[in-house]
Amino acid sequence: TIYVITPTYARLVQKAELMRLSQTFLHVPQLHWVVVEDADQPTALVRNLLAESGLTYTQLHILTPKDRKLQEGDPSWLKPRGAEQRNEGLRWLREMGSASRGQHGAAVENAVVYFADDDNTYSLKLFEEMRYTQGVSVWPVGLVGGMRFESPVVDGGKVIRFHTGWRPNRPFPIDMAGFAVSLHLVLTNPDAVFDGDAQMGFLESSFLQGIITMEELEPKADMCTKILVWHTRTEKPKMKREDALQKQGLGSDPNVEV
Amino acid sequence: TIYVITPTYARLVQKAELMRLSQTFLHVPQLHWVVVEDADQPTALVRNLLAESGLTYTQLHILTPKDRKLQEGDPSWLKPRGAEQRNEGLRWLREMGSASRGQHGAAVENAVVYFADDDNTYSLKLFEEMRYTQGVSVWPVGLVGGMRFESPVVDGGKVIRFHTGWRPNRPFPIDMAGFAVSLHLVLTNPDAVFDGDAQMGFLESSFLQGIITMEELEPKADMCTKILVWHTRTEKPKMKREDALQKQGLGSDPNVEV
Ligand SMILES: O=c1ccn([C@@H]2O[C@H](COP(=O)(O)OP(=O)(O)O)[C@@H](O)[C@H]2O)c(=O)[nH]1
Ligand SMILES: O=c1ccn([C@@H]2O[C@H](COP(=O)(O)OP(=O)(O)O)[C@@H](O)[C@H]2O)c(=O)[nH]1
Ligand SMILES: [Mn+2]
Ligand SMILES: [Mn+2]
Repeated sequence: TIYVITPTYARLVQKAELMRLSQTFLHVPQLHWVVVEDADQPTALVRNLLAESGLTYTQLHILTPKDRKLQEGDPSWLKPRGAEQRNEGLRWLREMGSASRGQHGAAVENAVVYFADDDNTYSLKLFEEMRYTQGVSVWPVGLVGGMRFESPVVDGGKVIRFHTGWRPNRPFPIDMAGFAVSLHLVLTNPDAVFDGDAQMGFLESSFLQGIITMEELEPKADMCTKILVWHTRTEKPKMKREDALQKQGLGSDPNVEV
Repeated sequence: TIYVITPTYARLVQKAELMRLSQTFLHVPQLHWVVVEDADQPTALVRNLLAESGLTYTQLHILTPKDRKLQEGDPSWLKPRGAEQRNEGLRWLREMGSASRGQHGAAVENAVVYFADDDNTYSLKLFEEMRYTQGVSVWPVGLVGGMRFESPVVDGGKVIRFHTGWRPNRPFPIDMAGFAVSLHLVLTNPDAVFDGDAQMGFLESSFLQGIITMEELEPKADMCTKILVWHTRTEKPKMKREDALQKQGLGSDPNVEV
């Protein structure tokens, strides 16, 4: 099983993002989607979308504390986004892992965990690459970090350094979309989590550095030469006319879910 | 068959966009994807993506003449985008339609044409709604025109006006994503095309006004009360670090397709 953990938050494009993401995942065999809402309660929008998705899923939620949340106008790099939600997904996996200890040995042995943001683009091949992860597998990510792509650099089958536009000496200069970890490693390292207070660019490192070394990384995607995931971002839709019409009482029907 | 005509052009996010779009379409039975590149030749990127998509498809191309193309820095509303490409798709359909006259009567009778931009988000339900179009079917579009949604307004099963934030008296104030047309109507109206010189917001009208009236529109999506398509737009990725590294000869390998 591939457990895909996706943080998500309410905004105009949320349903559209989750919709196309669910269509991608629906092509992937043995995928379990763990959707973690940045909200103090589960929402009906996400509940209904998941129920109609045809996927195997779990709906979780945890609100990012206000002081850790990016405020309107803050530059996007100021605080990491989705950290608490990914940790909530890890907590659920560990709870499930200990509940089923012994019983589902094989299922746990072969399971993999991937952190998939709701706005990225994923090739179906990516999931076949990560499916056989022993510890932590890695691959390039397109359109991230101000670069055409960032990537581990492989020599003799091992990762020897990282191609990145910024601070290559970070412990793991890898985007969230660029690695998967075996469930086994998640369960045997119960304290490995994302540090929501990590400096910009160090969130992935905060999780990975306790569980793996660079030498142990498993390069995938033809020795990290193929781009199978893209760090796309979706524009925030302008609501200029909507706002104007709403002032006249002529706005779009608020009962219609967008 | 649903013939989906998609204009597309080379840019950093092109492969990502076409990738997730192809994953959506792969869930839809009896869909034929007509991809029309804004290019003077077919590209290898699009050819390979289509070949690996698992879809039934046709790859076409036509370059937008320079004087009709939006230039860097032009406001996005200045010139319609994708008009020549959609017309090339129509030309191909008509050519195919006359080549198969008589032989594939039923196939043509039940076929539908939809214009799907490469950056929008489509629910799978949308295709089941449009599949039974007699003339022109219509439905709401989310996140378009500065509004939460734009939509035909239906009364007694007929479209009586349009909910839009701008010039509701245009002949058809409907986004490209908001209608489908029967192939029959396309073939029996050989001169109906998109006018690449149409004023802003009048491109859809330029095609529709010759073939249908408002009264004849077929409202879908529960009488135009459900949003099944979203006019999402993808951010242009920043290449700041890439540009800096390239100047030092350390840029991302140009042989890696992104
Ligand atoms: O306040 C927020 C902002 C973002 N996210 C989620 O965290 C992930 C990363 O956020 P985003 O895609 O905005 O980050 P970026 O594209 O800047 O890396 C996405 O799945 C978002 O839905 C969240 O849960 N709460
Ligand atoms: O020079 C261009 C610009 C756009 N398009 C295509 O035309 C459609 C509409 O363009 P876009 O999505 O940029 O328009 P908007 O989102 O502003 O409506 C999309 O399928 C694009 O790929 C094109 O073929 N050539
Ligand atoms: Mn993102
Ligand atoms: Mn668009």
